[in-house]
This record gives sequence, C-alpha cells and structure tokens, in this order.
Amino acid sequence: MINGIPIITLTTDFGLKGPFVGSMKGVILEINPKVQIIDISHEINPFDLLDASFLISCAYPYFPAGSVHCIVVDPGVGSERRPILAVTKKYFFVAPDNGVLSYIFEKEEPVEVIHLRENEFFLKDVSQTFHGRDIFAPVSAWLTKGINPRCMGPPIQDYLKLTLPKAGISEDKKRICGQVIHIDVFGNLLTNITRDLFHNRSTGELKVKVNDICIERICQAYDDLEKGALGAIIGSQGYLELFANQDSLAKRWGIHKGDPVELIFV
Amino acid sequence: MINGIPIITLTTDFGLKGPFVGSMKGVILEINPKVQIIDISHEINPFDLLDASFLISCAYPYFPAGSVHCIVVDPGVGSERRPILAVTKKYFFVAPDNGVLSYIFEKEEPVEVIHLRENEFFLKDVSQTFHGRDIFAPVSAWLTKGINPRCMGPPIQDYLKLTLPKAGISEDKKRICGQVIHIDVFGNLLTNITRDLFHNRSTGELKVKVNDICIERICQAYDDLEKGALGAIIGSQGYLELFANQDSLAKRWGIHKGDPVELIFV
Amino acid sequence: MINGIPIITLTTDFGLKGPFVGSMKGVILEINPKVQIIDISHEINPFDLLDASFLISCAYPYFPAGSVHCIVVDPGVGSERRPILAVTKKYFFVAPDNGVLSYIFEKEEPVEVIHLRENEFFLKDVSQTFHGRDIFAPVSAWLTKGINPRCMGPPIQDYLKLTLPKAGISEDKKRICGQVIHIDVFGNLLTNITRDLFHNRSTGELKVKVNDICIERICQAYDDLEKGALGAIIGSQGYLELFANQDSLAKRWGIHKGDPVELIFV
Repeated sequence: MINGIPIITLTTDFGLKGPFVGSMKGVILEINPKVQIIDISHEINPFDLLDASFLISCAYPYFPAGSVHCIVVDPGVGSERRPILAVTKKYFFVAPDNGVLSYIFEKEEPVEVIHLRENEFFLKDVSQTFHGRDIFAPVSAWLTKGINPRCMGPPIQDYLKLTLPKAGISEDKKRICGQVIHIDVFGNLLTNITRDLFHNRSTGELKVKVNDICIERICQAYDDLEKGALGAIIGSQGYLELFANQDSLAKRWGIHKGDPVELIFV
Repeated sequence: MINGIPIITLTTDFGLKGPFVGSMKGVILEINPKVQIIDISHEINPFDLLDASFLISCAYPYFPAGSVHCIVVDPGVGSERRPILAVTKKYFFVAPDNGVLSYIFEKEEPVEVIHLRENEFFLKDVSQTFHGRDIFAPVSAWLTKGINPRCMGPPIQDYLKLTLPKAGISEDKKRICGQVIHIDVFGNLLTNITRDLFHNRSTGELKVKVNDICIERICQAYDDLEKGALGAIIGSQGYLELFANQDSLAKRWGIHKGDPVELIFV
Repeated sequence: MINGIPIITLTTDFGLKGPFVGSMKGVILEINPKVQIIDISHEINPFDLLDASFLISCAYPYFPAGSVHCIVVDPGVGSERRPILAVTKKYFFVAPDNGVLSYIFEKEEPVEVIHLRENEFFLKDVSQTFHGRDIFAPVSAWLTKGINPRCMGPPIQDYLKLTLPKAGISEDKKRICGQVIHIDVFGNLLTNITRDLFHNRSTGELKVKVNDICIERICQAYDDLEKGALGAIIGSQGYLELFANQDSLAKRWGIHKGDPVELIFV
C-alpha cells in the first residue's frame, strides 16, 4: 500500500482478445476495489519466459515502493510447478516458479521467496488451466490488503533462476561478444552489452557488427543520422542499442532475437 | 458503487488505434471522475456479437457487485435498434439490443431490462455513428452516480436473445456433438461441451474428434504432454478445451471457430 | 486535479509489447499515486505525428477540465527539439515540440506554451532515447500535484505547427476536394470534409468520389444499406465518412490515408 493507493501491475502473454485479463482484474477488484491496476503488457510472446522477465525487469524499478507485480507466463499451469511470491526491498513479485523472474533476481537478491501454498488466498475453485485468475490475481490482491507473506506459505531457497545470455570480453580485450535480447516496436535492437562493459573506451573508436552489418557510429540521438541510416546508441536501460533512424533495423535487415552482436575496439 | 469505488468495464470492437475508446473514457470521467475504468477487451472481431457476448460472459462474474459492464459491438448504430440496460442481481449491463448480451441472459435471467430512452442521460448531441461515446458511456457513468434505472426508460420484455450453439447428446448416448466456440490467444480450442454433459463418465474412456484429428487423452494439465502433443482438458470456464502443448492447435491444424467437435464414449 | 481525482491520458507509438508504457506509468505513480492513468492509444503508427495529433484531437474534449494529456511520438528524442507544455483553457498537453499538437492548436489557441527546461521536474538521469519516461511522464505527474507551469520553463511563441491537409471548394462551388485523413478499425474512411462545408446543400444532391468509386448515397445510419453496400455519412467528429456496411471499404477497395476525395454537387 502506497499512501493509501495500492498498485498491482500485470504482465502476461494472454493478449487482449480473450477473457483472461478481464477476469484477473475482476478477481483483484472483488478482493480490493481500491487497487489501481496497471497493465505493463499482455502481449508477451506466448510462453516466452525470458521476454516477460526482461520486460518487467525494465519497468518495475520505476514504480512506488509497495507495488505488487503480478507476472503470468505459465506454460506449466496445473502441473507441479509452484506458485511463488518474491519479496524484495521495495516490491512484491507474484509469479509461477518457472524462471520468469530471472532478470529481476539478477538485479537484486530477494529478501525472501515464498512458496504460495495456503489456498485460503486462492479462489475457492482452482482450475487446471488458469492460475492467473485463480491463484496469482487473488494472492496479489490480498497482499495489497496487508496480508503477511509468511501467512501464504513457507520460504524456499530452491526457486528457479534461468541462465541469462551474457556478453563477454575477448581475451585480448579488443572485442565484446553479446547478442540481441529484445527487438522493440520500432525495430531497434537491444543488446546485452551494457554501458559498463565499455564506458572507459572513447566512443569514437568502436565498431559494431550484427549479421552482415557493420555500424561505425555511436550516436547521442537517433536523429543525429539521416533517415534510414544505421547507428548505435546507449539505450534507456543502459544497454547498447542498434537502430536505423525512423526505420525498422530488424525488419529491413532480417535480424532476430538471439542474433550475435560483436563490438570491436579499433 | 462498491465501497465507494465505482467500476465500469468496457468490451468493444473499437481496437486501440482510434479515438473511440479514449473518447468513451473521457465521457465517463467527465460525469464521474472517481470511476475505475477496466478494459475487458477492445479487440473483439468487428461486428462479432457472439464473440463479445461469450467473452464478457466469462469475465463478468468475477467483478464486485454493483459493477457496470458496458458492451459496445454495434453494427446497427444509428438505426432503430434500441439501447438497453439489463439489470441482474449483482450487475448492470449497458449495450445495444442486438443480442450481444445473449450469453449473459443464458447464465442468468435479468431482473429487468430497460429501454434507454431518456436522453438527459446521453450526451447533448448524439451522433449517427458513435453511440458508445454518446449513449452507452454516459449512461454507464450515470449509473455509478446512483441514478435509478427506471428513470432511464421503460422496462421491456421483447429484448433480443440470439440462439446460441448448443452441444447435444446422441440418442444412443455414445456421442456428444458440439462445436468450437472460441479460439484463445494460444490457439487452444474452447468447445461448447460442458463438464456437466459428461462428468459422470470416467475420463479414461473418451475420444474427441475435431476435423481429422482424434484426441484420446483427457489431461489434468497442459504440461502432462510433450511439447506439441495434442490433448483435451477441462478449461477454466468448465468447457472441454482442446490444445497442443505450447503450440497453436488452431493454426497448425487449420481449425476455425464453428468447426464441429465430437466427443465419443468408447 | 478534478474533484480530487487527477487524470493523465497517454497517447504514444510505443505499442504494448515493450516496457515503455509500463515504465511511464511507474514514473507517474511514483510521483503521484492518486493519478488515474488513461490509455488513449499506444498503437499510433511509429513516428506518425499527424495520426497521433488527429487521434488525441478527437478524444481530448471529452475529458474533465484539468486533465493532463501526455502525447509521446518523438522521432527526434535526444536531439535539440524542445519538450513543451501547452496550456489551454481546460487542459494541459505535454509533448515534444515537433508538431504533434497541430490538430489541437487548430481547434483552440493555447493560453500559453512553455518550453520545459527546468530539470528538477525530470527524472534525475535523462536518457538519450526515452524522454517519455524521463521528461514527459514526470512533468505530467508534477502538473497533477499543482506545480505552476511557469515554474517549469519560459513561455515560447515559436512552437511548431504543421500544415494540416485542408479540404477546399472549387471556384464554381460545384466540388469540394479533400482527402482521407484517417482509416478506422472497421475500414471506414474519415475525410477532412466537414459538415460545415456543405451543410446548406440538400443531402440528396451529392456524389462522393474516392479513387474509382462513386458513392451516391448519404445515409443516416450505416445500417440504412445492405451489407457490403457503399455509403457516406456524417461521422461522430462532424467529418464526412465513407463506408461499406459491415465490411472494410479501405481493404476491399485498396484505399489509403491521403487518397483524394471529391464531393460533387449534382
């Protein structure tokens, strides 16, 4: 609860054509009609845990302390995978224990992780196929009512962390090898090469290669270049980002998530 | 009004690329800025009354009592079709009288249905093409201010109920014939075969046919199967659902809404 | 602030697949958790200033006085283009100074336009690529806290207004020449021919030409026509609109934004 205004954010792969998201919102408001429900995204690629993880990891630090982040990308719904609650210094994360919180766990160690087991905080009938509505939404709502996480189940240590793709520096320190980890709506390529990895190097002496493309210019603004020209820039998350000014680099050059990116100091 | 927090849900085929949804939200907040507006979906297939009806019928029961559900799929806007308000035990439904509430009327008899005729609850100028903004949004907002439905127009009996596709049991009781009534974002097929129709039968003795596919396995979780394998499961609405684990059954096998589904007791 | 409920609307080309919109919402709520955030659209065509401008110009007049409209279509982010705040009689508009407010400036002269320069109302670290999160969201939130616009920067006169496509009457007053300015989700064509341009003419004596199509019927409702038949109607914004009843005129006849439309008095 934040100054009396409880906030729950939703990140799912449910899309907006079906009743999934609306049902979750109903469940939340039935338990706590004062909640401000904030859609982060419902257009995660189906079952894409890392995509969801990356996306929420970019957005969550901007929310007020006390916000509950409910993330439901859940191919294992109804199986033995556990529902969990990760408590960090400022936030609550409610999600299946399938690695969807991995990018968050990389940013900060949770204070504790709870195995959500007490079904008094679930809907009365839990379906086999929709724990977003039956478990994750009601648990999120009860958290905004001040329920202590420890009442919801026992702490666990063996929650799942997926191996995240990392950028690495070559032995001769002349190259950083990373990959495209997200393609945004404009077709810009976010890489996992962080500013920290090369911030001591002068920006004039770099080259970036992705597939057959070579980018020689590190810009201060997309608009430093002519329309359609290719550049690199430090993006809003501190990652090296590759772009074609006012064009889709990904589409025009056929680049996909996971493609390797090489940064060369010349 | 629910503990002082009025809720209006919106279900439309307006998409999110145009000004339609934003205009409706403005109208609502101008009348009652305290309303919490909840998007159920704005991605109903254009003019698809049954799709909208099915979708809102899945989501509405989860909302707090007193919620106003505003549903605008309205190919007959500007013609003689009436705007109506259906009052049920717990909710208000504001919609055109074109059958878009049929799935709700199947779930529960409305307490009364009002022909919305009193234009003091409409915007001052009612356009020919956008009653979502000019009639349905303001009426919904006025309801949250406590206006008595009877002030908004006379009760009617002859509101429209569409014939919904029903599943039927064969004479020899060996087969249930239904159809695909919704395809969800994952490509899973929701059928109109409810659990009640076969819940006394052991789940081990069933076969499900849709087009040329035969599914022999009723699962407890999607993940009971290998990736890509086909199964059936009781979905979150109590309907028999057919799926390919972590794949799109609809796309991969070319199945469409309305395709016949046969459940055979072997 | 409106009866204690501050409202911020968002109009962007950020889509809903990425963290952009969620991050902006977090920033707003961190500054003022009481804000009701209203999505107008996040599906503006990337970089399409006039599309965003037209869309928000249709929706904004329906919002309560005091609402803050935050519009971020910003190809020049990080360059010298200024962030601005336009104050009108009833509203605040926060946007880049790139013409994205042009349709609003056509509807009403702003009381004043401020160059947003005081970075105490920005996030502490302003990125090169995401001023939606770092400048426009926090400024919008601070406005709902009652900060005086004059504290945010100096008034300017030389803000950008783009030339909008206008309809014109021929010398012999027998034809009005305009163009398609928006295609809605149903495939209907909104033109820039306003009702005022021909409202003294009897509606029976008109013909409308777009590409090779000739429409001879001005309707009172879409449903005046058979399914698929072509008609014209005065749309909800007072513009002449062309449609195929329950079909997509744009798709079926290959019509695009910018195509010329001719209205002929016969």
